[in-house]
Amino acid sequence: MPELRKDPIVGRWVIIATERARRPMPESTEPMLAPGGFCPFCEGNEDHTPNEIFAFRQQDTLVDQPGWRVRVVPNKFPALKIEGNLQKKGDGIYDHMNGIGAHEVVLECPFHEKSMAQLPESYIREILWVYHERLNDLKKDPRMVYGMIFKNVGIAAGASMEHSHSQIIVTPILPVNVLEEMNGALEFYNYRGRCIYCDIISQELKADCRVIMDSPGYLVIAPYASRFPFETWIIPKHHGSNYENTSKSELEELAVVLKTVLLKLEIALDGPAYNYMIHTGALNSPPTTHYHWHIEIIPRLTKVAGFEWGTGFYINHIPPEQAASVLRNTDTDGI
Amino acid sequence: MPELRKDPIVGRWVIIATERARRPMPESTEPMLAPGGFCPFCEGNEDHTPNEIFAFRQQDTLVDQPGWRVRVVPNKFPALKIEGNLQKKGDGIYDHMNGIGAHEVVLECPFHEKSMAQLPESYIREILWVYHERLNDLKKDPRMVYGMIFKNVGIAAGASMEHSHSQIIVTPILPVNVLEEMNGALEFYNYRGRCIYCDIISQELKADCRVIMDSPGYLVIAPYASRFPFETWIIPKHHGSNYENTSKSELEELAVVLKTVLLKLEIALDGPAYNYMIHTGALNSPPTTHYHWHIEIIPRLTKVAGFEWGTGFYINHIPPEQAASVLRNTDTDGI
Repeated sequence: MPELRKDPIVGRWVIIATERARRPMPESTEPMLAPGGFCPFCEGNEDHTPNEIFAFRQQDTLVDQPGWRVRVVPNKFPALKIEGNLQKKGDGIYDHMNGIGAHEVVLECPFHEKSMAQLPESYIREILWVYHERLNDLKKDPRMVYGMIFKNVGIAAGASMEHSHSQIIVTPILPVNVLEEMNGALEFYNYRGRCIYCDIISQELKADCRVIMDSPGYLVIAPYASRFPFETWIIPKHHGSNYENTSKSELEELAVVLKTVLLKLEIALDGPAYNYMIHTGALNSPPTTHYHWHIEIIPRLTKVAGFEWGTGFYINHIPPEQAASVLRNTDTDGI
Repeated sequence: MPELRKDPIVGRWVIIATERARRPMPESTEPMLAPGGFCPFCEGNEDHTPNEIFAFRQQDTLVDQPGWRVRVVPNKFPALKIEGNLQKKGDGIYDHMNGIGAHEVVLECPFHEKSMAQLPESYIREILWVYHERLNDLKKDPRMVYGMIFKNVGIAAGASMEHSHSQIIVTPILPVNVLEEMNGALEFYNYRGRCIYCDIISQELKADCRVIMDSPGYLVIAPYASRFPFETWIIPKHHGSNYENTSKSELEELAVVLKTVLLKLEIALDGPAYNYMIHTGALNSPPTTHYHWHIEIIPRLTKVAGFEWGTGFYINHIPPEQAASVLRNTDTDGI
């Protein structure tokens, strides 16, 4: 059973999950993920994954059988598990919890495609809708406090599988980074009476030097204080705190935006390793006026070193204005 | 000129330092740092580094000439620069500062040795004393608020040079991670009236399952909430908030402890990439009773992925009790 432990000084939680030691991990020095010929995420290999939780599939096809387009399964090497009751206990100055939560994998296509950007738009639309459906389902369970949807692409970004996929981890407490972001947004709201993300949208539209893409419902920017070269945020223009409350038409537009942005990154940076994370409101709280869901994409072009680990300061050698200019001018039309 | 920018939501600062784009960086897929035959950090190549700031050298040898044992030079591709006045300004919701500070490199030996653990103990003693001297010198400048001493070893840990070296970056503001750690320690102190690190020492000595090494003046542990496999902390038993206030004899003992711990990691993990960071009090504040300087060592065996970036939660598949047992039992006697 995984275990949650809290650092007594900074309040940071860690998950001790020994089972994850068994997952397939390529040598860090290999340039590519081991293809091996066999992929448990491909159609026809459904018996190599845990049982299906959810799928979009062709009519008259059966659960855990071929015929799916997007498929969700529990992670075979979960960081957190859904079985059991949440038990909190102390040990002197230390705090401890059992590892209750959820860890799901979204298989994004039945065929062996590595790049989400190369998937047809209809797939991306369904993937985004699957995230929506899973969060709405998981939030019915009162133990589930926060749902983080994320994607790891490439070895440098921590991926262990090549086949295009993303993951959902649901935690029984509000993670520290999320809490900091929410508190920061709340502080701004209390002081100014406005959502800080809405303010960022209007300032960025006016400044017009960090905009990568401007679509009717979404603004894509290189954030002012980018931690990493080519860090990219997708912010919905319509205020909403929770991803799971977005409408189907909003996600249809997001599919176009996300595919375009990922294509731009793929072309401009030659298929980089990257992560994306959907930052969204807590599952167990009503929508808020101060928090604003968004997507953060971080290409993993540089290594995080001792200075960053020690201070939380990041050193970025590409100004976001320059990154935005490169990405804005990267043409995806012929692709 | 480097530039400091603040994320308006979480208050995290980033350094935009375009000059660092010019530094030599090996391809991330290469198993080793490019040796190239030529090393600007080796004795005899002093004219390939900026001018010496400090050195321990043989009598009657000249600055920027051979004859040194440990040598400190400005970083050729600095994240922050010492010239100029600190200028803070706003831009709508954003905050900005020019990149005032210091960025120095400590060349740890005149000969081309990659591993600090393999250096004679006398070298490590002098390196630790150099850190002490540099912080005491830098703190005379009132613009210098925080000094982070760190080491990057191996590509995965963000090193760009192979020759054993460490770095000092001094920032004009208190970094967010440092502030969080200090605030956490202060909160504990206000509540319990004791230093939390002193409490950790006594609880770990009693529990005796995460102790890697116990020397008269230092306790070496795998911390209870280890973020990374084989994360290792060296905590001085004698309370002190600032590294630069340690005595020569305390650092002499630290040299033995640090060499032994690095050797244990090198042997047990087969020469891993790693970072170490000296967590110490602010340069511009008097010693405190609540904060306690220490060294954190993180072997870089796993990749940080989207979940960690998004949440600040870490997933660690090696319990610290197991890591401590491995390192405790790793024999360094014959080395």
